[in-house]
Amino acid sequence: MLPWKAARPGDPLVAIDTPALVLDLDAFERNLMRMAEALRGSKVRLRAHAKCHKTPEIARRQVALGAVGICCQKVSEAAVFVEAGIEDVLVTNQVVGDAKLRHLAALGRRARIGVLVDHPLQVQALAAAAQAHAVTLDVYVEVNVGANRCGVAPGEEAVRLARQVAASTPLRFMGLHCYHGPAQHMRSPQERAAAIAGAAQAARTTREAIEASGLPVERVTGAGTGTFLHERDSGVFNEIQAGSYVFMDRDYGDNQRGENDVAFEHALFVRTTVMSRATPERAVVDAGLKASSVDSGLPIVWQRPDLRYVKASDEHGVLATPDAAALTLGDPLMLVPGHCDPTVNLYDELVCVRGERVEALWPIAARGALL
Amino acid sequence: MLPWKAARPGDPLVAIDTPALVLDLDAFERNLMRMAEALRGSKVRLRAHAKCHKTPEIARRQVALGAVGICCQKVSEAAVFVEAGIEDVLVTNQVVGDAKLRHLAALGRRARIGVLVDHPLQVQALAAAAQAHAVTLDVYVEVNVGANRCGVAPGEEAVRLARQVAASTPLRFMGLHCYHGPAQHMRSPQERAAAIAGAAQAARTTREAIEASGLPVERVTGAGTGTFLHERDSGVFNEIQAGSYVFMDRDYGDNQRGENDVAFEHALFVRTTVMSRATPERAVVDAGLKASSVDSGLPIVWQRPDLRYVKASDEHGVLATPDAAALTLGDPLMLVPGHCDPTVNLYDELVCVRGERVEALWPIAARGALL
Repeated sequence: MLPWKAARPGDPLVAIDTPALVLDLDAFERNLMRMAEALRGSKVRLRAHAKCHKTPEIARRQVALGAVGICCQKVSEAAVFVEAGIEDVLVTNQVVGDAKLRHLAALGRRARIGVLVDHPLQVQALAAAAQAHAVTLDVYVEVNVGANRCGVAPGEEAVRLARQVAASTPLRFMGLHCYHGPAQHMRSPQERAAAIAGAAQAARTTREAIEASGLPVERVTGAGTGTFLHERDSGVFNEIQAGSYVFMDRDYGDNQRGENDVAFEHALFVRTTVMSRATPERAVVDAGLKASSVDSGLPIVWQRPDLRYVKASDEHGVLATPDAAALTLGDPLMLVPGHCDPTVNLYDELVCVRGERVEALWPIAARGALL
Repeated sequence: MLPWKAARPGDPLVAIDTPALVLDLDAFERNLMRMAEALRGSKVRLRAHAKCHKTPEIARRQVALGAVGICCQKVSEAAVFVEAGIEDVLVTNQVVGDAKLRHLAALGRRARIGVLVDHPLQVQALAAAAQAHAVTLDVYVEVNVGANRCGVAPGEEAVRLARQVAASTPLRFMGLHCYHGPAQHMRSPQERAAAIAGAAQAARTTREAIEASGLPVERVTGAGTGTFLHERDSGVFNEIQAGSYVFMDRDYGDNQRGENDVAFEHALFVRTTVMSRATPERAVVDAGLKASSVDSGLPIVWQRPDLRYVKASDEHGVLATPDAAALTLGDPLMLVPGHCDPTVNLYDELVCVRGERVEALWPIAARGALL
């Protein structure tokens, strides 16, 4: 337990101790609505990715607005959300090892649980665990549609694995997981469109090959915040896994927006304070790389184009400043983090603000759920 | 609370769920001894930096082997260690803002507490907080000796600030904080020696100028794992703040060792499992950038020079593998993380192993202590 909190509900914005992870509720709620609108009238449903927020309060709001459930990346993460009442969780990952399989199968007694496979041995181990716990698990074959990470090759290899799943009694073959991660941050709309056209073609070919073998493919799931309109309109995907749209980090903000792309807003900020101002040309803030993950680059300073965050060390952020008047010791600033997912994972709570006031603290209950 | 733990004391190594942060106790204990030996007989004492380990059990062992106390970077981090019984804590940072100053001063009732300044307004605010809580705080003037982060310029500016501190009744002017962060990871021994020669000269000049003004300088503190022998032998530093020597991350391992440098060993590992093996040329492990911070580069695979960790995403690590026989689904591996401090900050517990058995779990009690 940390010895004190950054804020309490009712506090004015200026009273928040720093660094703190701040959620702008108005912008966040608009992002939720824009996603719901973007899928309304389509036959494509949202299964919101919870790996970026790890926050049951957010998952509940996503489900209330129409999401069928959530995705998680880890079994322990899924356990947190099942405990919080989410009834349909897809672990968008391979699950390997006895301990993990035991926990995954146990969750199958409390919620609808799905999982991915890309190897015959995973199918055998999942079937054994499901049988031991007397549960049925939804299983999706992960297809490598361009990300070159996990996943079998499109076509025959996927067909063989799908048939193995379908032949395993305690497993329910649901369909295909076709996620193209690198496409999410291709900067031009044309690159993103081309990458997803390729991914959709690979998914379509594979679905048709499985169906030609006599096995129905109920679900083709994938997509992220950077590309989901392409998957929505592909005619082959029928489930969208976007997550970051709730927050919009700097890396997503750096994408050039296509003319039809949804105007999600930055809603997640690291609030920080100028703690050193020993020279006119730089200021040092109290948010370094333990407060704002730099794996996808440095944060930017919100609504202060005159300031540049130029260097992060563990607990310090160095800002280049135009002159001595630009900032004073003690000034608060808001940073837009480079990458929302690992930044959220550094905090225990979201400090939710509306206007100039703290409205709530939401526990990031799956923070650190690595297993 | 996370739903389950990676291991229990007594478990065999192979039963550890992954990813998990593993401390090799034998190597760790040798590192502690080597540091104590390196300072034995010198007039230079160790004030171990706790920002890298955030673990009271480790701080206690450092003090038991002769460390005068610890350094922290954050007030809330200091609070965790004071609560755990550490009696002398230097916050090697500027502390700005009413809430933080209140907490800092309150700690001054329970332990000897030090803090840095690099601006006259910080001195005023510290004096007011100390007075309000009826405590005395140790204050060190931070001097910029080459890191170009916080700190006043060497010489006259430091003299003025030191005199202001000494004139503030509830503050005790202790001396100078002269830390050269970038020097720690300069790759050649010659570069490191030259950087610290410059830092020591700046520290010496400043100490002499303050003493010439009639004010004694009891302490000159600084140094890190990469350079501390130079500070030890400088004749001006009399306290060493090394921290990472207990763990030794990949970034420190990449330094070329000078002929006199101490042979610290890698003692901290991220244990991980191969979860996808869909192609012969790559394997995917369950430790990505939420399990091993990549701010200072990617991890390496311990004792497996045939494997290269080539890409980290949130929950996946991609390894380049020479052939299909190199790894099998489910194989465990140990990674040496790129940077120990932010990696430790991702976990709630250290899984302490001796040989092939888990000996203890140590809470990383100050994990996430950002305030």
